[in-house]
Amino acid sequence: MKRIEWNRLDADARRACLARPGAGDQSEVEAAVKRVFEQVRADGDTALRALTRRFDGAELAAFEVTPAEMAAAIATVPASLRAALAEARERLLAWHRAGMASEFEVDTAPGVRCGRLLRAIPRVGLYVPAGSAPLVSTALMLGVPAVLAGCDEIVLCTPPRADGSADPAVLAAAELCGVRRVFKLGGAQAIAAMAFGTESVPRCDKLFGPGNRYVTAAKQLAAMMAGGPAIDMPAGPSEVLVIADAGAPPVHVAADLLSQAEHGPDSQVVLLTDSAALVDAVEAEVRRQVAELPREAIATRALEFARLVKVDSLDEAFAISNEYAPEHLILALREPRAWLGQVSCAGSVFLGDFAPEGLGDYCSGTNHVLPTNGAARAWSGVSVASFQKSISVQEVSRAGLAAIGPCAVEIARAEGLEAHAQSVLRRLENVR
Amino acid sequence: MKRIEWNRLDADARRACLARPGAGDQSEVEAAVKRVFEQVRADGDTALRALTRRFDGAELAAFEVTPAEMAAAIATVPASLRAALAEARERLLAWHRAGMASEFEVDTAPGVRCGRLLRAIPRVGLYVPAGSAPLVSTALMLGVPAVLAGCDEIVLCTPPRADGSADPAVLAAAELCGVRRVFKLGGAQAIAAMAFGTESVPRCDKLFGPGNRYVTAAKQLAAMMAGGPAIDMPAGPSEVLVIADAGAPPVHVAADLLSQAEHGPDSQVVLLTDSAALVDAVEAEVRRQVAELPREAIATRALEFARLVKVDSLDEAFAISNEYAPEHLILALREPRAWLGQVSCAGSVFLGDFAPEGLGDYCSGTNHVLPTNGAARAWSGVSVASFQKSISVQEVSRAGLAAIGPCAVEIARAEGLEAHAQSVLRRLENVR
Ligand SMILES: [Zn+2]
Ligand SMILES: [Zn+2]
Repeated sequence: MKRIEWNRLDADARRACLARPGAGDQSEVEAAVKRVFEQVRADGDTALRALTRRFDGAELAAFEVTPAEMAAAIATVPASLRAALAEARERLLAWHRAGMASEFEVDTAPGVRCGRLLRAIPRVGLYVPAGSAPLVSTALMLGVPAVLAGCDEIVLCTPPRADGSADPAVLAAAELCGVRRVFKLGGAQAIAAMAFGTESVPRCDKLFGPGNRYVTAAKQLAAMMAGGPAIDMPAGPSEVLVIADAGAPPVHVAADLLSQAEHGPDSQVVLLTDSAALVDAVEAEVRRQVAELPREAIATRALEFARLVKVDSLDEAFAISNEYAPEHLILALREPRAWLGQVSCAGSVFLGDFAPEGLGDYCSGTNHVLPTNGAARAWSGVSVASFQKSISVQEVSRAGLAAIGPCAVEIARAEGLEAHAQSVLRRLENVR
Repeated sequence: MKRIEWNRLDADARRACLARPGAGDQSEVEAAVKRVFEQVRADGDTALRALTRRFDGAELAAFEVTPAEMAAAIATVPASLRAALAEARERLLAWHRAGMASEFEVDTAPGVRCGRLLRAIPRVGLYVPAGSAPLVSTALMLGVPAVLAGCDEIVLCTPPRADGSADPAVLAAAELCGVRRVFKLGGAQAIAAMAFGTESVPRCDKLFGPGNRYVTAAKQLAAMMAGGPAIDMPAGPSEVLVIADAGAPPVHVAADLLSQAEHGPDSQVVLLTDSAALVDAVEAEVRRQVAELPREAIATRALEFARLVKVDSLDEAFAISNEYAPEHLILALREPRAWLGQVSCAGSVFLGDFAPEGLGDYCSGTNHVLPTNGAARAWSGVSVASFQKSISVQEVSRAGLAAIGPCAVEIARAEGLEAHAQSVLRRLENVR
């Protein structure tokens, strides 16, 4: 953990303090992903079978999970976990539904009615990582809004285990959301399958979900293909920034920093506080708590780069936080809601001493697929809107055209586009 | 113009009929853009001056348009054009304002309040092409929603003319919207300046606007930079698809196809109709009208690839249109509104015989920055939302944590994340 006095830093040192780790040289990963894309594009399912053999050690004749396989797997999931997933889904439904956009219409001139339609993206592809720790919660976070949006085709890919089966808890979460098509496919080959389509996997219009650096590079490559799928957002290591005042319980703050640190060695952990005493107390508490964790080794590596920053004031803390634009922002403050107006860039905000990040990760109702690496300056977390697009509409009567047509003609001619002017004028001849 | 009987085509021929032109080999453009990025990143304004000299033939000491320069230029814009821009802006304000999202809060459990904040993207960069035909209207289409969103810093770049001045009408449009910082910069160097920031140009969080293939490639490159800016959407040639019935006036339909065709030789023009007689009449009318256009040569080249498709029914036409996902969709139908439910993928829809695309391009109130190249399957046109992001919030009381904490613990442990469980449990110890 690095202890930092913000006001002793010059501009360069401040920038360095807020810098994310670079991704390093990605050229090998990108080259490998390109080869996978070429194989899948050329050979479809045959390529998927070979790649799954090589990368997952699994021999699969078919990739799609059958209804019987789904039912059998789900029966093995502990009832307590199934109940927790069902409970989490209810709150996810409540928040996501409350945030859904609506269509509208407005008369912008007499006879000119302009509006907006909302339509689901027809075919969406969800990626749920598995491996050592399958991200059961991610299946909920993607499945709930996809189903609420009403997407026609929802495809979920998750890596097979060596025995050719999918993680039962991931299947239970998918089933619970109403995601019916699950494919046992992982890594860049899963992304390629959804981007191009194969004999068995439908081509998707937009791809969602986290993944390792191969999956991330594959989504980026897919997003660059002309006419290719959209993606949810750029990916980077997970992050938390805690703004705490002197009254924040060090036990809580330390637990929050550690729950971020256990995600991976590249997790970003930042504390900003106006209390030097809190920095001391949190540092001691982190050292005490980390020793008790099963993932101590991972957390310890992430903590090497953790920054505990003493600032002069909470106003300064918010200015720093907005510049950093953290994925998760915890406000461990006495009057957290009063500070909300100062938040301009963050993925998700946690108010007060009883809102650990883990609630947002799993079951408060908000979505845990959030912008990282500073993307929160311009990107939002996943919501139902991520699975929809809006379509503008204009309905114009004869009178409406007579009213606004001359305006269009004037600007069209200023842009040198006479056929645009004529498309109005030839109609106006019919009106007058 | 290619006349096509849809039902005589096999699956491959149908796919070919709906295919967009590929971008061709982009490697030279990409390499040139990369060099520009490296120069601007390394040398800032000095590089911008050299690149502006080379590509625009203009010698500029400073890039930002001064207030005096702005006022003098605007005074040269014809009053009729200024009035048209002001009139268009009013309707743009009405539609964009009516579509603005709102914040919300919902209790997902007792003591658990989850909501969403809306925040403007702090720094946005707008690109407005100039050259032979400056896109005055694009300055409005980007400026109006940026100002409504409340972005702190709105930067507009537009290429200088050889005498070092900016197009007066573009300046008038910018001023009208309330865009205060205009830079005389064009091409890939303008995008690089806004992506990296230089001594004089602020670094931007998101970049908007159309451009030539250098600008397009530069936006793509900027979007791929880790920690780099977001972009509005992928770019491609402009498109119109008209669905017409036997009652559609051929004069209108032909004028619509031509107003698309004059945009450029790569413009995509498609007509779908269940009336063979309309195909004949439109084809004859297009030949008659095109001869009268100043941009006849450009339109004629685009028309070579225009597709006039006879379908069996309007239902079939909508199925084809949704698969194609056109930027502009004109419904030249007797009961156009009754068909709106069948539209699932399009950028903007024009209803009836008196709604030429030119209205949406300029002054109906909707935005003309729209997804092309099939991106309308997953992307929306520009709106105020494009200049905002949403931030989720959760506020949890002691009782709320007691209510939902165990659910989080159950799922965290299923994912093997004990520190997440502990961040809840250590707080619950304080509660019970
Ligand atoms: Zn977490
Ligand atoms: Zn147009």
